[in-house]
Amino acid sequence: MKIRKATKTDLTAIIEMLANDVLGSQREQFKDPLPEAYLRAFEKIDADPNHELVVIDDELGKVVGTLQLSFLQYLTYQGGIRAQIEQVRIHESQRGQGLGKKLFEWAINRAREKGAHVVQLTTDKQRPQARKFYEGLGFKASHEGMKRHL
Amino acid sequence: MKIRKATKTDLTAIIEMLANDVLGSQREQFKDPLPEAYLRAFEKIDADPNHELVVIDDELGKVVGTLQLSFLQYLTYQGGIRAQIEQVRIHESQRGQGLGKKLFEWAINRAREKGAHVVQLTTDKQRPQARKFYEGLGFKASHEGMKRHL
Repeated sequence: MKIRKATKTDLTAIIEMLANDVLGSQREQFKDPLPEAYLRAFEKIDADPNHELVVIDDELGKVVGTLQLSFLQYLTYQGGIRAQIEQVRIHESQRGQGLGKKLFEWAINRAREKGAHVVQLTTDKQRPQARKFYEGLGFKASHEGMKRHL
Repeated sequence: MKIRKATKTDLTAIIEMLANDVLGSQREQFKDPLPEAYLRAFEKIDADPNHELVVIDDELGKVVGTLQLSFLQYLTYQGGIRAQIEQVRIHESQRGQGLGKKLFEWAINRAREKGAHVVQLTTDKQRPQARKFYEGLGFKASHEGMKRHL
């Protein structure tokens, strides 16, 4: 199992995972060819050193997980950097095998390496099992995650 | 009252507001001269087009409020952009006069202008009055805000 930076050729596998999910299926459009918007978004993420989109490969080189780690510079915490995790998915064939934990351990180590003072994410209250998973990794639900859709 | 991009000369006023707060007083160092780390952080924020650090001036040109609005590119929501608000403060002499609402209305409009599909923030559960304020502005506490300090 290998965690590495995503490349353009991984995009189909990533979008397939994002769409294959109760909430994701309402938001994404996984079809062939992929909507152009995904490619444009990938190029922006890839060009920005504050975003790290990674995938995890299985033993055969198939993409079986992904997350995006972003580094946000603020003034608070004496000019601190926050590491933020979004867009976490594990392929349905691989769930319950510790891949998510592996990806998160990578992200937490990477955040430390970059000098971040906190790793943060928000999780939909419709996913109570996800909250438990994050608590198991040392996260605390200390904040409300407030969203206003436009 | 005017909302505008923060400049380096606003930094002292901004850090004073960040430090003058129950939680902020434990995290910040407001002293003269300001710790260098704030200046370095300001320069990074200022140089990155995905961050907009703004202040609000009173009628006399004094800085009485601030927030940082950031635009985050993801693959989810068909290559959508999230607008994220952090580091919100209103000067204690000006609270309860609608300045916070004004700043947020600016941020929501700016997020629309930039094509974001959502505006998001996390608020410490130790600030229940803040949650009510955000709900009044149309935000929903649909997510848990999970943090892991490093």
